[in-house]
Amino acid sequence: MIRAAIVGANGYTGFELMKLIDAHPYLTLTMAVSRSHAGTRIRDMYPPLGFAYGDKCFEEADTAAIARNADVAFTALPHAASAQIGGELHDRGVKVIDLSADFRYDDINLYESTYGVTHPRPELNAAAVYGLCEVNRKKIANASIVGNPGCYTTCSILPLYPLLKAGVLSPNGIIIDAASGVTGAGRKADVSYNFCETDGSYKAYGVTTHRHTTEIEEKLRMGNEQFRVTFTPHLLPVKRGILATIYADLIPGVTSADIDNAYKMYENEKYAVALGEGVLPEIKWVTHSNVCAFGYKIDKKTGRIIIVSAIDNLIKGASGQAIQNCNIMFGRYESAGLPLIGSYL
Amino acid sequence: MIRAAIVGANGYTGFELMKLIDAHPYLTLTMAVSRSHAGTRIRDMYPPLGFAYGDKCFEEADTAAIARNADVAFTALPHAASAQIGGELHDRGVKVIDLSADFRYDDINLYESTYGVTHPRPELNAAAVYGLCEVNRKKIANASIVGNPGCYTTCSILPLYPLLKAGVLSPNGIIIDAASGVTGAGRKADVSYNFCETDGSYKAYGVTTHRHTTEIEEKLRMGNEQFRVTFTPHLLPVKRGILATIYADLIPGVTSADIDNAYKMYENEKYAVALGEGVLPEIKWVTHSNVCAFGYKIDKKTGRIIIVSAIDNLIKGASGQAIQNCNIMFGRYESAGLPLIGSYL
Amino acid sequence: MIRAAIVGANGYTGFELMKLIDAHPYLTLTMAVSRSHAGTRIRDMYPPLGFAYGDKCFEEADTAAIARNADVAFTALPHAASAQIGGELHDRGVKVIDLSADFRYDDINLYESTYGVTHPRPELNAAAVYGLCEVNRKKIANASIVGNPGCYTTCSILPLYPLLKAGVLSPNGIIIDAASGVTGAGRKADVSYNFCETDGSYKAYGVTTHRHTTEIEEKLRMGNEQFRVTFTPHLLPVKRGILATIYADLIPGVTSADIDNAYKMYENEKYAVALGEGVLPEIKWVTHSNVCAFGYKIDKKTGRIIIVSAIDNLIKGASGQAIQNCNIMFGRYESAGLPLIGSYL
Amino acid sequence: MIRAAIVGANGYTGFELMKLIDAHPYLTLTMAVSRSHAGTRIRDMYPPLGFAYGDKCFEEADTAAIARNADVAFTALPHAASAQIGGELHDRGVKVIDLSADFRYDDINLYESTYGVTHPRPELNAAAVYGLCEVNRKKIANASIVGNPGCYTTCSILPLYPLLKAGVLSPNGIIIDAASGVTGAGRKADVSYNFCETDGSYKAYGVTTHRHTTEIEEKLRMGNEQFRVTFTPHLLPVKRGILATIYADLIPGVTSADIDNAYKMYENEKYAVALGEGVLPEIKWVTHSNVCAFGYKIDKKTGRIIIVSAIDNLIKGASGQAIQNCNIMFGRYESAGLPLIGSYL
Repeated sequence: MIRAAIVGANGYTGFELMKLIDAHPYLTLTMAVSRSHAGTRIRDMYPPLGFAYGDKCFEEADTAAIARNADVAFTALPHAASAQIGGELHDRGVKVIDLSADFRYDDINLYESTYGVTHPRPELNAAAVYGLCEVNRKKIANASIVGNPGCYTTCSILPLYPLLKAGVLSPNGIIIDAASGVTGAGRKADVSYNFCETDGSYKAYGVTTHRHTTEIEEKLRMGNEQFRVTFTPHLLPVKRGILATIYADLIPGVTSADIDNAYKMYENEKYAVALGEGVLPEIKWVTHSNVCAFGYKIDKKTGRIIIVSAIDNLIKGASGQAIQNCNIMFGRYESAGLPLIGSYL
Repeated sequence: MIRAAIVGANGYTGFELMKLIDAHPYLTLTMAVSRSHAGTRIRDMYPPLGFAYGDKCFEEADTAAIARNADVAFTALPHAASAQIGGELHDRGVKVIDLSADFRYDDINLYESTYGVTHPRPELNAAAVYGLCEVNRKKIANASIVGNPGCYTTCSILPLYPLLKAGVLSPNGIIIDAASGVTGAGRKADVSYNFCETDGSYKAYGVTTHRHTTEIEEKLRMGNEQFRVTFTPHLLPVKRGILATIYADLIPGVTSADIDNAYKMYENEKYAVALGEGVLPEIKWVTHSNVCAFGYKIDKKTGRIIIVSAIDNLIKGASGQAIQNCNIMFGRYESAGLPLIGSYL
Repeated sequence: MIRAAIVGANGYTGFELMKLIDAHPYLTLTMAVSRSHAGTRIRDMYPPLGFAYGDKCFEEADTAAIARNADVAFTALPHAASAQIGGELHDRGVKVIDLSADFRYDDINLYESTYGVTHPRPELNAAAVYGLCEVNRKKIANASIVGNPGCYTTCSILPLYPLLKAGVLSPNGIIIDAASGVTGAGRKADVSYNFCETDGSYKAYGVTTHRHTTEIEEKLRMGNEQFRVTFTPHLLPVKRGILATIYADLIPGVTSADIDNAYKMYENEKYAVALGEGVLPEIKWVTHSNVCAFGYKIDKKTGRIIIVSAIDNLIKGASGQAIQNCNIMFGRYESAGLPLIGSYL
Repeated sequence: MIRAAIVGANGYTGFELMKLIDAHPYLTLTMAVSRSHAGTRIRDMYPPLGFAYGDKCFEEADTAAIARNADVAFTALPHAASAQIGGELHDRGVKVIDLSADFRYDDINLYESTYGVTHPRPELNAAAVYGLCEVNRKKIANASIVGNPGCYTTCSILPLYPLLKAGVLSPNGIIIDAASGVTGAGRKADVSYNFCETDGSYKAYGVTTHRHTTEIEEKLRMGNEQFRVTFTPHLLPVKRGILATIYADLIPGVTSADIDNAYKMYENEKYAVALGEGVLPEIKWVTHSNVCAFGYKIDKKTGRIIIVSAIDNLIKGASGQAIQNCNIMFGRYESAGLPLIGSYL
């Protein structure tokens, strides 16, 4: 068994990791670390985890203890804090999969200007691999530290990457209009996320300023320093799931055959599913699943392609992709312990 | 025009009062008082109120100023604080409709043991009238201070009162199993009421201990000091509305004709609607309306009556009934400014 | 009192009209016509309407009877059927406000190709006025037949019209990414709209093919026959409300001052509210209200403006605007009987 | 591998069975039978099943073919039809787990009067075992035909059975007030279950008449022919999950120690979890899980116990318990392929 620790286990991604690890054939949870809840029984915070973990408690962030007890650590702390403790664990020989933004960027200046912090471990950042499994699988297999991608970014990059690489889209003027469930905001005592303020409503937020914009731009720019996307997130009255509706201008003459051809890159993938022309996913197709599914339509009138892409923000957009990265890093079946069929209901 | 002030205007009942007052033919809002938000524009907290109130701000709790500017004050502060400021306003000649529990109880000891506070104005409590309009209309007309009933209590008492008064129910063993929308908890930054923790779920709370139990018991005991009800509230994943399912043993021989006869007490009422045998209301019938609607079924197998009663907790269960009390106190049409048709959608 | 009939009263827009008419100071409902439900009590279909209308029943579509009993008819039938019966009523001297698409288009060919029907009364269509109140108020005042605008179209046209008229936007490449509540689909026994299939999910639909596209294009083209928009509707798990997120390229040099200046056209409007730069409405600001509210942000990086616009699809997007048109046509206060403050909760 | 067929696979329990079987270590789906959808690709009805089953289609109800291809059949058809085809499959040597009510009753007259049909295979009914795993495990292990319990019944019987058996409750006057998600009504094109009619509302239904009442009574009567319960179901605006709030009179002198002692019967159970005094489950603790969890409070004032019990109606209340029965019948690990941790989010 691979011994796993979660650092920052009290958030929603921590909950999902504990759930996935319990059902995983090769992983076993040795430590659930939470600085704010050390000593509390996990089940007192998340009662259903008691069905599997009994009276197990959250523990202190003691890196020496973690290093003795874990082969891999999933770190999910606020920006900069995550790199700090992830770095210490890495120094002690633990493989690290970081769910914060700390190890996602190649360009550390872009990271620092986006997140408004100084990176505590720039040298480690240089060694880290961006954990978008379907794109970076080989590098991930050899990595000792992985920056797990953001939720909106996974949902946006997976369908766009093959098309931009194949040169069938104009890189100018791409718009990503996306909507996320409320778990995307994390576990927060904030009146804005109170049921009464959220249910029955819908809103845009972070318009022109959301931090995932630069992550998307860096991963899709393909050498073009002027590459810019317009990214508008919205808050859906659902608990989980992201749907991105993406608008791009096709290079004149490009047909659906060219699009489908570019997507052949994913033909053997289980978790990046190109549905083809005219089949557009709904959020319920992928909730509680590790699948990112996407389809498209071409609007001949305007020469645009409209791509619709869906993921579960907590699974493929966070904890599921983290497990997938772990499976790759340890050379196990990549699909071990990962849910495939969306909940639909 | 009757000049109205709201004290504690920043909560959800305050919002509803401001909305109702704007649409009311005889009431005008002169002051919206909020100790915590004084100086803030109302629209910065509740943007749709800006469509009616423009840049109007919340104001300080200056009782002299309120007394100069208001004929009536709706007080909606935490227990004891509400009686304190309501009392001061009453001393200055303002009519007071209090939405807290402070002026609801005849038995001040029962109030104090239920709420764990000392009543700041016991002499005023003695003069206050319990504002259950359909039952206490005449007293309300002459009152200068009214204790506006609780939400669960209004929904429970209105259908039970006529039956207990007519002696068709056994007073022993009544069970009130009720479910409320999340606005019942007020406007709170509490992770328990986060959308992610509430949507798609359902739970009982306050089992055997909810404070509305003693209010229900006092108003229905009819001289029987041993009268007790079992009251179990639940939290629904809806924003507003209460449905109470009430179980009681019929006195042997009682028929639906006897029940309907007892409900004739409400035959001219607009906001207490007895639907009759076999017609059971749903929450959507009364949301955004001042109506309390109820129906019943008789279970011959067990000799029980099962009553289902519905209200909007923010309207008939709080702000709407407060306006109804105000209309009565000022001798206006009782239905002025009160919504009748439930939103359904 | 103005005597009103509703033809096709059994749908959700019929329900909202009956609710609005009951609370209207000058309108009285004389006939609620439903071919499929004639003879059924209204309250058996919509129980809360019973609180106001008692045992009133739906009636047959007898145009002679309607003409005797009504000064105005709100027609809300399927396409072509609505024009047919609306036309007959108009012939008999009844003013007609039609909620279908039948009288919305200037270009009858565009109507016919969009809806796939032959217009039964082309000569009446030529006389009809497009009932977008804030734009066509004077024409509406003199009209005897009005085509009430679509829901998505109202939400899209109101914020775009002043900007296109002022020439501050490029007419090329406008994208309208919109999301609607499920009432937008009408009252349907269709498993796709079952709660289990809709709650917790989100999807795009009608991508590149939605019929409101041509209505938007016709009303915004301003003489430019090549004017095209990309319109993508989505289905939200909410009952009511539309939010449109609109992307357009600014003419180089245009600033927020120019935008605000264009929106001065609405400065005295109650139901078209320009919130200004950086204030973006949420659906809950306008539900159960007749307001269309919109704000915007400018993305300097890409030279785009992003406008967010919100309405209640059943009120400003249908029945409320119909009442507003009626008020204008009969020379009454335009705001009579129209709700202003969004429900928020 | 155990070869499994599902007959009546197009409903929601069929969907859940296909999902559970795909993730099951010993079961493989050989045939998904649907009389109404034979020839249709499964993914065209339930797109996420395509991620696992590709282009597999629903098949005709050919019992000879099913018998050749399946060791076990899960039958989920309407009452009487299910026993008919289940009986034929049993005759051909297939083990049958029936999800309808057809094989649940010992007393065939009670079945027939409750469901209003004549049982097509009374002799098979006599041989069938009631598949409440924690109570009838040994009999199930030897059964060739199992009647899978109802959802409300599982949620009600599991917490009540140990207490009635231990004699700590009065058998008179038990009330079960329960609430279910909309999937409980099945996959239906019925306007009553349209999102617009269900969301934001809550209602009682089947009051005094719900068919699960007699199933509960039969399984809990323990020889007392006069045993009756009052059962009131409600419809929650959630997709899945049941919460039952149960009221019973304690035998005088009974304490929480006696209750806990009675529940020791479940101390080694994974899927019947007694949480103890004062710990009351919420629906989200058990959604997407096979656990039935329950806790209780004692109301000393009235001498009553109030038990709160929760299950996922589609898992422990239907498809999960069916798989659990299958595991027992084939002598495999009882927990194989069964989800343990509730989804919470």
